[in-house]
Amino acid sequence: MSTDEPAFAGGADYERLLGPFVGDLAQPTSLSPLAYDLNAGVPDHATLPVDAIADAMERALRADPGGALTYGGAQGYEPLRAWIADRESEASGLALGPQNVTLCSGSAHAIDNIAATFLGPGDVAVISAPAYPGAIRSFRARGARIVAVPQDEGGMRADALAEVLDRIAAEGATAKLIYLVATYDNPSGATVPRGRREEIVDIAARHGVLIVEDDAYAGLDFDGPAPDSMFSVARGRGVLYVGTASKTVATGLRVGWVVGGEEAIRHVVFTRLDNGSSPLVLRTLLAYYEGGTHGAHLARIQDVYRERRDVAAEAVRAAFGELASFVLPGGGFYLWIRLAEGIDASALQTAAAERDVAVTTGTLYAPEGSDERHIRLAYPTVPPDTLRGAIARLGEACAAVAAAGS
Amino acid sequence: MSTDEPAFAGGADYERLLGPFVGDLAQPTSLSPLAYDLNAGVPDHATLPVDAIADAMERALRADPGGALTYGGAQGYEPLRAWIADRESEASGLALGPQNVTLCSGSAHAIDNIAATFLGPGDVAVISAPAYPGAIRSFRARGARIVAVPQDEGGMRADALAEVLDRIAAEGATAKLIYLVATYDNPSGATVPRGRREEIVDIAARHGVLIVEDDAYAGLDFDGPAPDSMFSVARGRGVLYVGTASKTVATGLRVGWVVGGEEAIRHVVFTRLDNGSSPLVLRTLLAYYEGGTHGAHLARIQDVYRERRDVAAEAVRAAFGELASFVLPGGGFYLWIRLAEGIDASALQTAAAERDVAVTTGTLYAPEGSDERHIRLAYPTVPPDTLRGAIARLGEACAAVAAAGS
Repeated sequence: MSTDEPAFAGGADYERLLGPFVGDLAQPTSLSPLAYDLNAGVPDHATLPVDAIADAMERALRADPGGALTYGGAQGYEPLRAWIADRESEASGLALGPQNVTLCSGSAHAIDNIAATFLGPGDVAVISAPAYPGAIRSFRARGARIVAVPQDEGGMRADALAEVLDRIAAEGATAKLIYLVATYDNPSGATVPRGRREEIVDIAARHGVLIVEDDAYAGLDFDGPAPDSMFSVARGRGVLYVGTASKTVATGLRVGWVVGGEEAIRHVVFTRLDNGSSPLVLRTLLAYYEGGTHGAHLARIQDVYRERRDVAAEAVRAAFGELASFVLPGGGFYLWIRLAEGIDASALQTAAAERDVAVTTGTLYAPEGSDERHIRLAYPTVPPDTLRGAIARLGEACAAVAAAGS
Repeated sequence: MSTDEPAFAGGADYERLLGPFVGDLAQPTSLSPLAYDLNAGVPDHATLPVDAIADAMERALRADPGGALTYGGAQGYEPLRAWIADRESEASGLALGPQNVTLCSGSAHAIDNIAATFLGPGDVAVISAPAYPGAIRSFRARGARIVAVPQDEGGMRADALAEVLDRIAAEGATAKLIYLVATYDNPSGATVPRGRREEIVDIAARHGVLIVEDDAYAGLDFDGPAPDSMFSVARGRGVLYVGTASKTVATGLRVGWVVGGEEAIRHVVFTRLDNGSSPLVLRTLLAYYEGGTHGAHLARIQDVYRERRDVAAEAVRAAFGELASFVLPGGGFYLWIRLAEGIDASALQTAAAERDVAVTTGTLYAPEGSDERHIRLAYPTVPPDTLRGAIARLGEACAAVAAAGS
């Protein structure tokens, strides 16, 4: 039989059988097939520490083949948890240990594990908007209602958060968590300043709501160190800190983690539903970190991505002129470009695709409604000269949209 | 500050914030620390194909470092999907391609991905009982109601399934799926005979309910080939087939998959919430399969585990006498031991633990209520002489429980 026979589904009518929240989900994001990819928020292949990872894999497997190739438990390889706890202890001044960490299969999986632990139908997840689409999907998949808190140049607005939480409480609903990327946000690039971090922590504590701090871009500092994490500002209280090896080592490892109070971590581990992450990969990551080359690697990619940020910023100013504006991010992978009145982001995306350039529009990152005023420009995978060319094409696309609309 | 300060939780009271279904979940299973582990359903470390995996990893990484170390999409590495589709095409006679396969992080994760796709609060998941606890957890975590269909020596009873589905329909509830391990069940060891597979497929089709066939123990045949899969019997219609590399290659890779009709697979991929499995690991598995040693490895582990099954069976007969009975499984990892009247499984588990022997009781596998009439004895990780000794200790524990109860 052929697999495209309609009868393949047989008795089961899949549409009818779908879960109640599947219809609320946006398409998952994916890498673009276009030649000029200003969409990929991943490290450039050329910067990946391939030799160090190959060496780490070999050492991890040979050191204890049975351990590396057998289930390692829901919380994951304790020595890697201890290593992460030590790094976060140093950053925060808190006395953290392996019991304060659980290892996941990437930070998207960590966020989904947190959603499984805390969210159910009708619960409210408060999200800094614009937001990482993966978090929106994981929260919606649990039937949660998402309420957006708008950002300004300093990321999530504390005054708006307070209003939102008051309104939710007045409605009799339960806000379970507040999700944000406080540093080098995806997509906005914004970093929440220290003072506002304190305000947000205070507001969340007053309402008894958990903060989920996604720090996926930690370490990608271009203009000096980032502010202390929300987790650190809160002295660990009421904050789950999500980290990942994706942006500073490799997305293909699929290793992320959650750091938090021991009780909170116990709950997250308990609600783990997949028999744990690959011990082979977790041990490889620890062997890589302990291999002694990571510091130099991080310094090198900071230089690479800082240059690309600067090239992208200059090229956007040159190519867009008055048609676009942005705030220069202090690190991370993205320029969040505000389009002039009359330039529709989807029209620009289409015109760019016709010129082989991939970007995403604000709507992808909008937890509620649409956002046709922004595009996200990701620069990490594109070398400087190509980046200039791609952004010139994007500028042409923008001029064409402006001309068509005027 | 110390991490065990009660104040660590701060404003957020984690118990209060937990999702509505977390309280319905049993503890996740884990490997035992006891010296004689008759609990571990995993390959013996000594049988793992370490050199072939090490070689495969190196080849997979070097062949395309950027591809191996970068997000590979929600559905996963297409050449591995094609390889699995070819194998299942050969087994089933269906014309399957990579579009009929999605790759997951182990079969537990595949089951959870299916649960995310099809189950919501109040939906009914029908489960062959006793059942794999991971499936019970994933279904409960979505708020589904679990209804058990009892097994006999031939696995899930078709007559009982028909009754259960009629009853659910009469209640006005929606049965979304039927979960079973049709071959070398965990924990019962039972294999559903061919004729009964056809009956079950017909009943499910009549009710428009999806069959989720977990074939985690596929290939672990001791007494000749297993019956055709449910997926094959149904000609692919209305069945999602879950496979894994855990039992025949290594649990530590965390690679599983779902095979199904193209539309069903599209839905499962859409509902994926973790940015996909590690391309490094997926490419390693394909390089391993293509390395040409897997056939010999499989034949070798069939011999190893067949011997352990036979040693375990003989030792249980010698050690328990009239106090226990079981049906010899045709493959897989487990003896499902029915205890004589008056022997309480939990009491036996406790007495065994005092003798350094780990087993699990039927209650762990009971989707509804408890089951103190059975223990599960897993033999794969224990060499024959140690297995005899461990089962002798277990027999002493049983005699002690019998003596205390009489």
